[in-house]
Amino acid sequence: MATPKKPPVPRAKADDYSEDAAQARRDFAREQTGADLTHASHYSIDPASVRGNVENFFGAAQVPIGLAGPLLIHGEHARGEFYVPLATTEGTLVASYNRGMRLLAASGGVKTTVVEQFMQRAPVFFFEDARRAREFGAWVESHLDDIRRAAEATSRIAKLSHIEQYAVGPMRYLRFNYTTGDAAGQNMVGKATFAACEWIKSEYPEGARYTLSGGIDTDKKHSQLNTLHSRGRRVIAEAMIPRETIREMMGVDTNTMFRARQASNAGAMLAGSVNNGAHAANGITALFIATGQDVANVAESHAAIVYTQLQDNGDYYWSITLPSLIVATYGGGTGLATQREMLEMLGCYGPGKSDKLAEIIAATVLAGETSLSSAVLAGDWVSSHEELGRNRP
Amino acid sequence: MATPKKPPVPRAKADDYSEDAAQARRDFAREQTGADLTHASHYSIDPASVRGNVENFFGAAQVPIGLAGPLLIHGEHARGEFYVPLATTEGTLVASYNRGMRLLAASGGVKTTVVEQFMQRAPVFFFEDARRAREFGAWVESHLDDIRRAAEATSRIAKLSHIEQYAVGPMRYLRFNYTTGDAAGQNMVGKATFAACEWIKSEYPEGARYTLSGGIDTDKKHSQLNTLHSRGRRVIAEAMIPRETIREMMGVDTNTMFRARQASNAGAMLAGSVNNGAHAANGITALFIATGQDVANVAESHAAIVYTQLQDNGDYYWSITLPSLIVATYGGGTGLATQREMLEMLGCYGPGKSDKLAEIIAATVLAGETSLSSAVLAGDWVSSHEELGRNRP
Amino acid sequence: MATPKKPPVPRAKADDYSEDAAQARRDFAREQTGADLTHASHYSIDPASVRGNVENFFGAAQVPIGLAGPLLIHGEHARGEFYVPLATTEGTLVASYNRGMRLLAASGGVKTTVVEQFMQRAPVFFFEDARRAREFGAWVESHLDDIRRAAEATSRIAKLSHIEQYAVGPMRYLRFNYTTGDAAGQNMVGKATFAACEWIKSEYPEGARYTLSGGIDTDKKHSQLNTLHSRGRRVIAEAMIPRETIREMMGVDTNTMFRARQASNAGAMLAGSVNNGAHAANGITALFIATGQDVANVAESHAAIVYTQLQDNGDYYWSITLPSLIVATYGGGTGLATQREMLEMLGCYGPGKSDKLAEIIAATVLAGETSLSSAVLAGDWVSSHEELGRNRP
Amino acid sequence: MATPKKPPVPRAKADDYSEDAAQARRDFAREQTGADLTHASHYSIDPASVRGNVENFFGAAQVPIGLAGPLLIHGEHARGEFYVPLATTEGTLVASYNRGMRLLAASGGVKTTVVEQFMQRAPVFFFEDARRAREFGAWVESHLDDIRRAAEATSRIAKLSHIEQYAVGPMRYLRFNYTTGDAAGQNMVGKATFAACEWIKSEYPEGARYTLSGGIDTDKKHSQLNTLHSRGRRVIAEAMIPRETIREMMGVDTNTMFRARQASNAGAMLAGSVNNGAHAANGITALFIATGQDVANVAESHAAIVYTQLQDNGDYYWSITLPSLIVATYGGGTGLATQREMLEMLGCYGPGKSDKLAEIIAATVLAGETSLSSAVLAGDWVSSHEELGRNRP
Repeated sequence: MATPKKPPVPRAKADDYSEDAAQARRDFAREQTGADLTHASHYSIDPASVRGNVENFFGAAQVPIGLAGPLLIHGEHARGEFYVPLATTEGTLVASYNRGMRLLAASGGVKTTVVEQFMQRAPVFFFEDARRAREFGAWVESHLDDIRRAAEATSRIAKLSHIEQYAVGPMRYLRFNYTTGDAAGQNMVGKATFAACEWIKSEYPEGARYTLSGGIDTDKKHSQLNTLHSRGRRVIAEAMIPRETIREMMGVDTNTMFRARQASNAGAMLAGSVNNGAHAANGITALFIATGQDVANVAESHAAIVYTQLQDNGDYYWSITLPSLIVATYGGGTGLATQREMLEMLGCYGPGKSDKLAEIIAATVLAGETSLSSAVLAGDWVSSHEELGRNRP
Repeated sequence: MATPKKPPVPRAKADDYSEDAAQARRDFAREQTGADLTHASHYSIDPASVRGNVENFFGAAQVPIGLAGPLLIHGEHARGEFYVPLATTEGTLVASYNRGMRLLAASGGVKTTVVEQFMQRAPVFFFEDARRAREFGAWVESHLDDIRRAAEATSRIAKLSHIEQYAVGPMRYLRFNYTTGDAAGQNMVGKATFAACEWIKSEYPEGARYTLSGGIDTDKKHSQLNTLHSRGRRVIAEAMIPRETIREMMGVDTNTMFRARQASNAGAMLAGSVNNGAHAANGITALFIATGQDVANVAESHAAIVYTQLQDNGDYYWSITLPSLIVATYGGGTGLATQREMLEMLGCYGPGKSDKLAEIIAATVLAGETSLSSAVLAGDWVSSHEELGRNRP
Repeated sequence: MATPKKPPVPRAKADDYSEDAAQARRDFAREQTGADLTHASHYSIDPASVRGNVENFFGAAQVPIGLAGPLLIHGEHARGEFYVPLATTEGTLVASYNRGMRLLAASGGVKTTVVEQFMQRAPVFFFEDARRAREFGAWVESHLDDIRRAAEATSRIAKLSHIEQYAVGPMRYLRFNYTTGDAAGQNMVGKATFAACEWIKSEYPEGARYTLSGGIDTDKKHSQLNTLHSRGRRVIAEAMIPRETIREMMGVDTNTMFRARQASNAGAMLAGSVNNGAHAANGITALFIATGQDVANVAESHAAIVYTQLQDNGDYYWSITLPSLIVATYGGGTGLATQREMLEMLGCYGPGKSDKLAEIIAATVLAGETSLSSAVLAGDWVSSHEELGRNRP
Repeated sequence: MATPKKPPVPRAKADDYSEDAAQARRDFAREQTGADLTHASHYSIDPASVRGNVENFFGAAQVPIGLAGPLLIHGEHARGEFYVPLATTEGTLVASYNRGMRLLAASGGVKTTVVEQFMQRAPVFFFEDARRAREFGAWVESHLDDIRRAAEATSRIAKLSHIEQYAVGPMRYLRFNYTTGDAAGQNMVGKATFAACEWIKSEYPEGARYTLSGGIDTDKKHSQLNTLHSRGRRVIAEAMIPRETIREMMGVDTNTMFRARQASNAGAMLAGSVNNGAHAANGITALFIATGQDVANVAESHAAIVYTQLQDNGDYYWSITLPSLIVATYGGGTGLATQREMLEMLGCYGPGKSDKLAEIIAATVLAGETSLSSAVLAGDWVSSHEELGRNRP
């Protein structure tokens, strides 16, 4: 195989977060790749401001943002009508969410509830056999206060809520659950858990070997564990949509809709899908990019459980539960220039706003569900000149 | 509940993709929300260019991009050393991937292979009972050529490869699999499948009711079905990392690494995780944003199977299989100003480049896996002054 | 650790399937363990008849059988009213299934359909890299006829239907799908696949290493793969239950029932359950024991997808899809004395009867679903003096 | 559709558990089906003894039992060498397990550990919206002592350990976890939970509607929830197998074995399998039938996580974790004549023996894993005249 010959990306000794350093890297990139970087260099963010957000900064991606709304939310934190910025390059996405927001507004709005909040780090401890691992588990349980102290000494914000324990072979997986205020918190819980593990290692009489992640955090990936025990915020959006409203605005009958829901539920079981809804990832991603979230958390955040009921009067109760919505309103990318503006538009910038942001995202997701589901069915209805199944399975 | 009182987002009758329209919406947003939009209005993309990418355009998110590399790839489409633009707001991400790229380069580079490519749309057909649904399935199989003709008439590019069939109750789920060239293809396969379904409905003697999506496409969400049958491209990145190289560069022994891999595999089984690796979503998301991909597809694309083997000489064979990597090099957001520049940096802009882009992404992901996994273990090693387990389970 | 000191179980040189040999082992067991084996020795089966069914035969378990029915089935193979023998030690099971059968009979009976039948063996082939594995896959596809010839030469019955291929890292998993007539077929497909693999190994130009099972058969364990692609028979049982019938016989309204179904669907998504129904395993196991099936296949066979629809007139369409019901009517334990009698009771002994048996089992399962689900809800209804939710989510 | 014409199964008014009643049903069955029931009527169990085990008793299935062992166990409850009765009709099963037991004995025996024990019932409570459901959850938590009192009043044995809570839409799933001593406990926890729910309903200020099972118990079906949180007993069996021992007895090198393990792990991820081992269901089922367990619980009990490590000296550490092994040593079928004899053979009849039985089953399962895995690999080795991959992925 060939050995690499190309030079590393240049770094500035003096100040790597200066415009000069960025320019130097653009020059380097142009030279190495021949690419024109006219647009990538057209940014208004101060290179100094991206320290802690990116290394080897050399430009910015411009992602267009569309405006949807108003979205009427009856949350505990988000209350009133919101205009929602959606950063996307996928045509029809904004229009579709906008349409769903209109439907929900006409239906009286969306109720949103943050049910719980946790952020995890899950080390695994190794022992000689399962019995010793079990003993260790009991010791951890009986030293929870000490462990908490060790963990919480590392941060003003992270609070250790509880530790899940899982036994496999000679191992003990400990899944540390923290609340992290308005930060997403992955880093602070990593630091806290490391401190806790080091304390455990030094104190546990038999000694304890561990690695800081045994793969069940589960960070940057979906797992059933996340669906069960929430990672980030577990948020639920609900609406009661009058039969007439959806018929008029979307051209679909709620009876048809409820019948189709049964097929979607069966389909999710069949496919082994992590979401029995339509396209939560679309709204989540667009809001994540716009507001400076860690967009890779779409991996965890896109899981959902849709639960609906048809009322006797034909109205349609629609809920979506997002078990692992990871959001922040400070730290990470939230302070960057454009991202901050978008958070400000939503009244969500800074401490004390993460629950509000979570509610807005969940409400947006529900809007998208109603819109796309209706579109699929109305298309069918139009094309077939008949309703989807009456008195048929 | 309150009824909505706020006005809808303004649209320009003449040309909604003009700078005037964007400005009008910014004025509107400022007025409604009080937000300053100085930075969101600092873009170089032409509002006319976002037609088909976003509705109600009013600004752009600036996502900082860091440069990593060189990444040495021995693909079938990507060959040589690449500098990789990663758009992210998460500190250490670029540094970590960069470190992994150095390791892989020093190890002789990454081999990448696109194994297969499909894009799906999966309607569900409803019948009176399971027997009629089964008969329908047989009919579909015997009319595959006609169905293909109907589907392919809608596009120059989409080619219908095969139709998976799944029976549940009185339903028949048909999962249409297409190749879509260098487009991601969700829209074209939707259109093609709609045409195919309408043809089926008109020709099937018994009549056929359907909805265009029964939830097993599975679009914008992970499913086991995607892991099995690939959505987008199934891409595999592999490297043989010499024991000495990783020890010197990462401070970890391959023996330690392989032992830890066993815990990660058990952890993935335990958690019901869709990825037994470290953080594929990070690299994928950063490249998706930089290059104008549909970022919501991180939902599908982040699934992975890591498979490694320790060689007799202590060298470490490391592979990661991304079963559902969805990429495009034209259409969607790929033509936007900054996104196009990033694709050009990679030599991936335009038709004929999607396999190359898929290979670069997979190689990048492998770099990130080696880097983060090493960091976790080296941290442990440092802290514990001993290797992770020798002659212990 | 202690070394073992106890003697091995005695075997008879002359004829290990004689009554003498069985008696010798009972004497041995009594001596070693002190157990009384009066009842275990009370069997009517001829020890000579268990050759091929069990080794070291020394007694028989007596599992009590209850009789349920009549069960009215409108299958393609099972037609008419059946009395169903259920071997179980769990009180109320027979009574509950019996009750469900009465309900279904009063509702006009159960429609049953065998949708497809496959038995699998899935070797994995190892290559130097992913690219070579992919090439191998293409070669396999282009040599399917030869491979089929090699496989089918080993058996009069097993017919190779198709080979699924899955790529992971440098491996190619081949999942051979056979039809196996009225045998469950695990052994014959093992033998056939071994022959096919040996042919492949000898013919593939580059050479091919493999192991006969790479864990995705998936034998004796549930997998999503089984739910998708059927292992054994995919059977569907359906009934249309009149609202009045279930109200009178079970004390439950179909509206209540359909509302509860929504919670069960959400619960299955939440738990990551392989069956969104009630207790299919109960009926399957009881029939498996009674009729000499390989009872360990309950692992695969208990998976199910329940799909229901409430009709406009309040009648309740109820279906259950068993994707992996593994049954046989000859071979294995079907020829043993009591097991054969039970098959004969069902008119299912011998070749040509497996589809019929599969239909009877599926109909029985549906009976059990209706009975238990009603009981849970009626209990609730009784206890709460009100219906489960009207006009409430 | 035809209406049913056949008569119901006869029941005896005086004593339905008399031999006369059984005989009457056999006569009935013979008349209705034409089946000979000579063997089904050859049982030694007293019909009076099956009260509580089966309804409409009319005969017994004779399932042949083979004897395997000695199995050397170093458990906390099972200590020493055991002869294990396996009731099966699948040829080679006993021989294969027997072979594995020899290997394990020669390796110094199996270590077994019961890590935890729970039995669940999981009602779901319905509310007007998610917020009220969340409030209810908090109320439950603050009234845990009262709820425990209500639950435990129904049984001397069942102790309420804790209640898991899960929020979906407007619902609150409560998963009650009990210890149930030496009973499997499904019925007692059902009764206890019903009492608890009724108490909750009467006391919760806002009122509470519920159904006793919301599908996440998860009873008679596998779920990821079971794998995570244990249903029945979580038992781990471990052995350290010397390289030479397995080479001599099985003809396989541990290096080969460890390499193959990597493919099995990848295969389990690929297939979405609930068990990355070989065939746990076989041993579990055979012991379940022999010892009077509720065999339908194979559905839950067959899940497993295999975790292995190759030692520096080539020895092979092998563990299997059974997260949901449901066993009993009294109640259910354990008191039936032959079943009781088998429990007595194992020294496991009656109260205080369930942990011991669980350990024996887990050890048996590990024996079966070593045997089948070796056979697959040795077959390959023999056939290929070369080891499975050295210095190859």
